[in-house]
Amino acid sequence: MAAIQSIEPGFYRIPLPVVLTDSTHGEMSAFELNTVRVRDREGAEGVGYTYTVGRNGGAIDAVLRRELAEIMAGEQADEIERLWLKAWWALHYGGRGGPTVLAISAFDMALWDLKARRAGLPLWNFLGGFDPKVPCYAGGIDLDLPLDDLLKQTDGNLEKGFRAIKMKVGRKKLSEDVARVKAMRGHLRADFPLMVDANMKWGVDEAIRAARALQPFDLTWLEEPTIPDDPAGHARILREGGLPIATGENMRTLWEFKLFIAGGAVSFPEPDVTNCGGVTPFMKIARLAEAFNLPVTSHGAHDVTVHLLAACPNRSYLEAHGFGLDRYIAEPLRIEEGVALAPDRPGHGIEFDWAGLAKVAA
Amino acid sequence: MAAIQSIEPGFYRIPLPVVLTDSTHGEMSAFELNTVRVRDREGAEGVGYTYTVGRNGGAIDAVLRRELAEIMAGEQADEIERLWLKAWWALHYGGRGGPTVLAISAFDMALWDLKARRAGLPLWNFLGGFDPKVPCYAGGIDLDLPLDDLLKQTDGNLEKGFRAIKMKVGRKKLSEDVARVKAMRGHLRADFPLMVDANMKWGVDEAIRAARALQPFDLTWLEEPTIPDDPAGHARILREGGLPIATGENMRTLWEFKLFIAGGAVSFPEPDVTNCGGVTPFMKIARLAEAFNLPVTSHGAHDVTVHLLAACPNRSYLEAHGFGLDRYIAEPLRIEEGVALAPDRPGHGIEFDWAGLAKVAA
Repeated sequence: MAAIQSIEPGFYRIPLPVVLTDSTHGEMSAFELNTVRVRDREGAEGVGYTYTVGRNGGAIDAVLRRELAEIMAGEQADEIERLWLKAWWALHYGGRGGPTVLAISAFDMALWDLKARRAGLPLWNFLGGFDPKVPCYAGGIDLDLPLDDLLKQTDGNLEKGFRAIKMKVGRKKLSEDVARVKAMRGHLRADFPLMVDANMKWGVDEAIRAARALQPFDLTWLEEPTIPDDPAGHARILREGGLPIATGENMRTLWEFKLFIAGGAVSFPEPDVTNCGGVTPFMKIARLAEAFNLPVTSHGAHDVTVHLLAACPNRSYLEAHGFGLDRYIAEPLRIEEGVALAPDRPGHGIEFDWAGLAKVAA
Repeated sequence: MAAIQSIEPGFYRIPLPVVLTDSTHGEMSAFELNTVRVRDREGAEGVGYTYTVGRNGGAIDAVLRRELAEIMAGEQADEIERLWLKAWWALHYGGRGGPTVLAISAFDMALWDLKARRAGLPLWNFLGGFDPKVPCYAGGIDLDLPLDDLLKQTDGNLEKGFRAIKMKVGRKKLSEDVARVKAMRGHLRADFPLMVDANMKWGVDEAIRAARALQPFDLTWLEEPTIPDDPAGHARILREGGLPIATGENMRTLWEFKLFIAGGAVSFPEPDVTNCGGVTPFMKIARLAEAFNLPVTSHGAHDVTVHLLAACPNRSYLEAHGFGLDRYIAEPLRIEEGVALAPDRPGHGIEFDWAGLAKVAA
């Protein structure tokens, strides 16, 4: 293999087609996209990215530009485990979470892309190979949609080929959540996989109360009932609320996932490859879940994550959740009859429209 | 009270008088200093700062400059609990640890300084007032010092008025650690408070083995035996190693401390006001420790932290640990007969030499 020749960060602001809302982040009008292109001395390239819901992209860019480019200069691009640890410890003080981990995630993704491309293999196959067809669901960001619009959005998702759907909960009144979930269940009919997502809105006992009120509607999972800082609280919600619990999009390390998985605090661990530290920790989290007899799901970055879940026997649903990025990708993810297909192109197979992105540089 | 008029970040690189080493961070030749000056509309000012051992200062600067300045524009400077939560949630995605928390720490410190100055009270008194005389110890960064130099450094610390000393452990051979600690104990005589710090060098069983080997030397505590991501491991080291455990300088939230304190995983919680989220979470951590019948110690930033410990009945030792910052402060911390004195000046009472700092701008 070859040494790293260059590390080139990019920083963009992607306007959203429509303003999104959830119970925690309020209104989101744009996402930040941080990319990194890693080239080795033989001219091979790997591409990684991370994103935010609108803030901290500048800090991520600073970590990539000021720190990682220097820390990694001349390193062997294929020694990913070693480079990951080197980055972790070089950035530990003032790192260990936050923008640092998002920057490491993007860099690590680029290294895996590079490595799989050099091997001529699609990433899902390179990582082990289980099944390129991954069941997926449409993740609606729809807390403020009036019920009619929510059902209309749902019909649109059914037409697009989705066979599982997630909706937001966490409105001011629990009775509104219950009415909306009941309407969705009626609309989708029995057995159609339906998840709900509270985006950390509740306290522990409030979440237990909500979970019990939502029990009649046969939910696949309740996501992020409370803050990710409380594994013991999640364990209570899971046991006493009576619904399976998904969480993980706001966890930043393998060790945080371990606290939840080994602590009986999560049913569907849900790492995001762009913020859990990259492909390297994502796969460890997925394998840890397997050892604990748990399915693994995902958050965000569906175009890359489809590969990671396609490598895992315990893969559950992939979240399909664009944020306007498809416009800047040559071949967006294909979804047919509820299944996303991990592409056969080498690496993760994403080609960014760099010229188009340049027009939205941050 | 008055609204925030301006938030002015500063970013500096402070060369160290001598290169420092510990078991994790390797050689450190400079610290990064990030400052923030918050002015209200009536002209009052508060000053906060954070620092790193050499990396991530650019990301901290980006958070202060790009995010917090905008998020906090026009807010009431005295509503600190509300502003802290606003910052936390505005920066949560891509925040929740790392440089984001260091930036929030500096900003929060500035708000408390401003508030106490407006009240005309020194911070230690404003925060409750226990006792301005705080026992302190000299934190040596001396892992690589030959034994003779270590003892010579110790004599220097005794001459400076220190009556408690911490030394590094975590050398390649445990027998070397044991020999050095034994020599220090002999040099300092019985009952002189002596601590050791492993800077996360060990695994759990390795730490237990080391703790047992160090038991004969009557240590006040063993610090950071392993990574801060493992509360259960710390609980085992504490129980089975037979030494009191200090840890916390690498924890970034109240909730992380809660896992350790409520989990029986720490004897001396050791928050750093410049990286645990600021004065606001530091005081909550100290009070949480009190509720669990634990003493609280501290890491770094002794000139500000002396105030926080002086407000706490359960305060243990203050770590005195300059990193060359004294050169840029009008009246550095006074230490006499093992006691640091919280100054009587309003706020934290630190006046930076801004002109001097400008010469080391990063």
